[in-house]
Amino acid sequence: MSGISGFNGKILRVDLSQGAVTTEEPGDDFYRMYFGGSGFVAYFLLKEVKSGTDAFSPDNRIIFASGPITGSPVGGCGRHDVGAKSPLTGGFGDAQSGGYWGSELKFSGFDAIVIQGKAARPTYLLIQDGKAELKDASHLWGKTTGETQNLLRQELNEPGLRVAQIGPAGEKLVRYACVINDLHDAAGRTGLGAVMGSKNLKAIAVRGHNHPPFAHPETVSTLGRWLRDNVMLLAKPLYDMGTSRLVMGLNKSGGLPTRNFQTSFFEGASKISGETMRNTMLTGRHSCYACPVRCKRVVEVKGPVYQVSPEYGGPEYETIAAFGSDCCIDDLPAIAKANELCNAYGLDTISTGATIAFAMECFENGLLTAQDTGGVELRFGNAPAMVEMVERIAQRRGLGNILAEGTARAAQKIGNGAEKFAMHVKGQEAPMHEPRLKQGLGLGYALSPTGADHCHNLHDIYYTAKGPGLENFKALGVMQPLPASDLSPAKVRMLLYNSQWMWVLNSLVYCLFVPLNYEQITELTKGVTGWNVSLWELMKVGDRVRTMAREFNIRQGLGPPEDELPHRFFTPPTTGPLNTTAINESKLAQARKTYYAMTGWDENGKPQPEKLAELGLDWLV
Amino acid sequence: MSGISGFNGKILRVDLSQGAVTTEEPGDDFYRMYFGGSGFVAYFLLKEVKSGTDAFSPDNRIIFASGPITGSPVGGCGRHDVGAKSPLTGGFGDAQSGGYWGSELKFSGFDAIVIQGKAARPTYLLIQDGKAELKDASHLWGKTTGETQNLLRQELNEPGLRVAQIGPAGEKLVRYACVINDLHDAAGRTGLGAVMGSKNLKAIAVRGHNHPPFAHPETVSTLGRWLRDNVMLLAKPLYDMGTSRLVMGLNKSGGLPTRNFQTSFFEGASKISGETMRNTMLTGRHSCYACPVRCKRVVEVKGPVYQVSPEYGGPEYETIAAFGSDCCIDDLPAIAKANELCNAYGLDTISTGATIAFAMECFENGLLTAQDTGGVELRFGNAPAMVEMVERIAQRRGLGNILAEGTARAAQKIGNGAEKFAMHVKGQEAPMHEPRLKQGLGLGYALSPTGADHCHNLHDIYYTAKGPGLENFKALGVMQPLPASDLSPAKVRMLLYNSQWMWVLNSLVYCLFVPLNYEQITELTKGVTGWNVSLWELMKVGDRVRTMAREFNIRQGLGPPEDELPHRFFTPPTTGPLNTTAINESKLAQARKTYYAMTGWDENGKPQPEKLAELGLDWLV
Repeated sequence: MSGISGFNGKILRVDLSQGAVTTEEPGDDFYRMYFGGSGFVAYFLLKEVKSGTDAFSPDNRIIFASGPITGSPVGGCGRHDVGAKSPLTGGFGDAQSGGYWGSELKFSGFDAIVIQGKAARPTYLLIQDGKAELKDASHLWGKTTGETQNLLRQELNEPGLRVAQIGPAGEKLVRYACVINDLHDAAGRTGLGAVMGSKNLKAIAVRGHNHPPFAHPETVSTLGRWLRDNVMLLAKPLYDMGTSRLVMGLNKSGGLPTRNFQTSFFEGASKISGETMRNTMLTGRHSCYACPVRCKRVVEVKGPVYQVSPEYGGPEYETIAAFGSDCCIDDLPAIAKANELCNAYGLDTISTGATIAFAMECFENGLLTAQDTGGVELRFGNAPAMVEMVERIAQRRGLGNILAEGTARAAQKIGNGAEKFAMHVKGQEAPMHEPRLKQGLGLGYALSPTGADHCHNLHDIYYTAKGPGLENFKALGVMQPLPASDLSPAKVRMLLYNSQWMWVLNSLVYCLFVPLNYEQITELTKGVTGWNVSLWELMKVGDRVRTMAREFNIRQGLGPPEDELPHRFFTPPTTGPLNTTAINESKLAQARKTYYAMTGWDENGKPQPEKLAELGLDWLV
Repeated sequence: MSGISGFNGKILRVDLSQGAVTTEEPGDDFYRMYFGGSGFVAYFLLKEVKSGTDAFSPDNRIIFASGPITGSPVGGCGRHDVGAKSPLTGGFGDAQSGGYWGSELKFSGFDAIVIQGKAARPTYLLIQDGKAELKDASHLWGKTTGETQNLLRQELNEPGLRVAQIGPAGEKLVRYACVINDLHDAAGRTGLGAVMGSKNLKAIAVRGHNHPPFAHPETVSTLGRWLRDNVMLLAKPLYDMGTSRLVMGLNKSGGLPTRNFQTSFFEGASKISGETMRNTMLTGRHSCYACPVRCKRVVEVKGPVYQVSPEYGGPEYETIAAFGSDCCIDDLPAIAKANELCNAYGLDTISTGATIAFAMECFENGLLTAQDTGGVELRFGNAPAMVEMVERIAQRRGLGNILAEGTARAAQKIGNGAEKFAMHVKGQEAPMHEPRLKQGLGLGYALSPTGADHCHNLHDIYYTAKGPGLENFKALGVMQPLPASDLSPAKVRMLLYNSQWMWVLNSLVYCLFVPLNYEQITELTKGVTGWNVSLWELMKVGDRVRTMAREFNIRQGLGPPEDELPHRFFTPPTTGPLNTTAINESKLAQARKTYYAMTGWDENGKPQPEKLAELGLDWLV
């Protein structure tokens, strides 16, 4: 048992090949160096996954991790992190999810789970109050997430069971299959569900009642109360419309990806907006553990064309844009249906929508034909075709079998220059943020260790002269706002600092939306753990994890050639009344060089030995 | 008038050649970027002093600066900083002083004074409540500091006048002349008194009654009260014996420089210890503005050989070791006398004592003879000879005229290999901390922009397994203690982080001794200014100022060849029951390379453009 408040001090080791579960107690310094979440993922991947290991090999690891503050009664602390070598990128795979599973893991007696090997038959892992066992899941294989959760809760007679699991897409190794928990929350990106599938691991069900004590309970409860008292002042739009509130604003700014990123303004935006969702189908607002924000949507659609049940929640902004504007679809019920299917089958909505948009552009340009699609007119704007393709991808049926590989691999199979329509970095599809509007984010797409990603990146428009973000940034010593299109060294610093902070959040594991500021999150960490942490130390943890993720990628063969954007972003959007401009390719290349040097990586993007030593990572030299 | 709490928002510009005083208002961002103290010095030197400018040229600048928290009613806030291009090193000159002058400057209506040019005749600067004027000082020229302060207070009929000034040593351009304030406090190092002398500037007298408001007065007063309530718990030894409490402990550890650093253990230590001073001559304890620690000594000696008046305070640790063990002198009254003379004449006690120790070793080795010394037997242990040499240096009489140039230049004039006895880095004499005991500090001597210096360095023995310092360091994310003799990359990081923090203190301008921790100093800065600063931002200010100082040195021609230690430190101490060992020269060279790379300097030790950009110093690229 660790002496650290906030943690259990125990990590569960699962060897599926051996059918063995054991407990490890890594000691206090380990926790303070890596915190949790992405920090643990980076640590175990670097320690245990050799160069060249196939993502679907039993030698790959998949890690589920909470963080120091997970399970605290403060909004934003109900999350967990999942990581593995990614079958989509071949590099650092990592994603976060909300809901109740993460806090339940913490209460079950373990801070994290490290899984290796491959089970001989479908298996699930059950953890209840410190006891872990591997159980047969043959009867669950092929089931949707809803069916599986119901079956498990019934057969274990435990309605409070929390289940993280894969659906059929993960079983079929769709490279962007996700890990679903609580039916509507997803560790969505980098194909982690397929890694579970490759290990014959259907689900991890957790239940626990042990709350590790806090070093300073009054600090924790004061912050929780402050958040509850101020949530409507600080986060009302997020409560009101969820992340879908972004649709109209981004569209107005010229930042709504449309027609597979051909342009960034969608005429049909108002039909798929947060306001429209609220007014036409919203039936509830889900929360994560202890969170007063309630940003998660619950929708119900009763026809005439689509029926969508509230069981699987409702679409977030990313999902709306991926299945909506990016596919040129203004049919919100169809989008809600696609969302439901993704959650039931265990598919990442971003990559699924983006891959369908890619296929639509291939179809419109004759690279795919009706013969390839089994007769489906896979054109932009065709909502039934989009919904049908979600089904086919999940089942790997027909063209779905090719699209299940992701845009990069699909483009290679389709040939005829299809690669130019594949909007990915390192094999991962770009999320629904326009890098020609937010050019620092574009650089972030290029440099993110997980491929194109919006969760450890810079959303430049908040840090312009008119943006609301600069005051917070001043606590990092950054005084000057910068245009969203800027790619100067000062912008590189902004990206660097902000991504470091995001990696702090991903290691803590804390929500990116809940409006606690740097100081409050530092206080929360101190209150839970009793460590005398500072924002400096937190930022150094972020730096450490970001650097470890990079080091993992370098060891897996990903380097500067993979730090590239799709060429489309070097041309302006095709249509619309926009200020959004092409990214200047040579400026981007210069900014990438600046980033390497600024953060202590050599010209090949490899962290220098002195950088590793500065971060206490001598063991990586 | 600035809108920033804690500052006046005004900097006084003085052109002595023109006889003009003007006011500049640099704006809020300037203050937040550079804070004050050493930060202002670095800024104005880089902006205004061209490469190759002679330190005694009218084109040199001398800057007197307070910081954001100066004048706050919290112990440790009663300091100021002085800086110029150093006549001793040819590079970044910077020193801090306690007492009452710094807070009085703040209350006088200005945050800092930037002085250029050369007055046609002896001049002093008088600032009273926002009004500044240059006044004739012909009648003060040649006077001791005590005489000058008395005359000014009398003729201006202002007993509360605070005077920073030079004595005869500064007038005569002794290269390690200091700036004395309040008669017993000194901006001691790097020869800043000589720069004042070269400008015919005898004194700066200040008086003011304007206290800039605090953003959060209750935060400030709470911290002040906390310190008063806890001072005897946290700093009783410092109250009891001042810094001289270090004598016995360092001697026991093998860290008391003895016989010009030939060895690090002094048999006579107990005769010059803090205990002996307290028991035989202590008559009082001076304080700085608002400080409850009272670490400063007041001594009185009534013979039989030496008379020492309490007017000039009493010797600190550095002074005791420099005139005592380093000269092999165990006569505490003689040391107290030397201290009095240094304060009356305006000499840096460290460089004065170290230069005399150097001369003693030259004498004992026949490089200096009785003919050179005018008959004085300048041998180790000869107390009257030591006191006599202080007089001669201040007056530049006889051999004193050579020794007034500092050990590096004196060694060149003496020739015959005298350089091997000159214990300096970049021309500045090593302070009284043994780098063979604290080897990280040895690396710090080599890398400090001011030459060998103990005020922005690492005192390794606090961070060993038995040392008390690690808990504080953990707030920076450094978890592991290291042996004092370690020079690994992990030690380089310790030095780097700690020196960054020291440069924060030097820019704030805050005392290095007063026991507020990182968090409290961050709180104090927030309470005074209202800025949402974090420890991250503070550390980045430290990084910025350290990097600017380096950049200034590079521009003045100081580079890797000047980042060297005296060769004596590569051999073990000659005598004593010590564990203190030789520094391994190649390990030191490797550690220096590691330091360059770890902090973003190129292999020539020049800050890389990306490093400058990261610190917001694009204007230096």
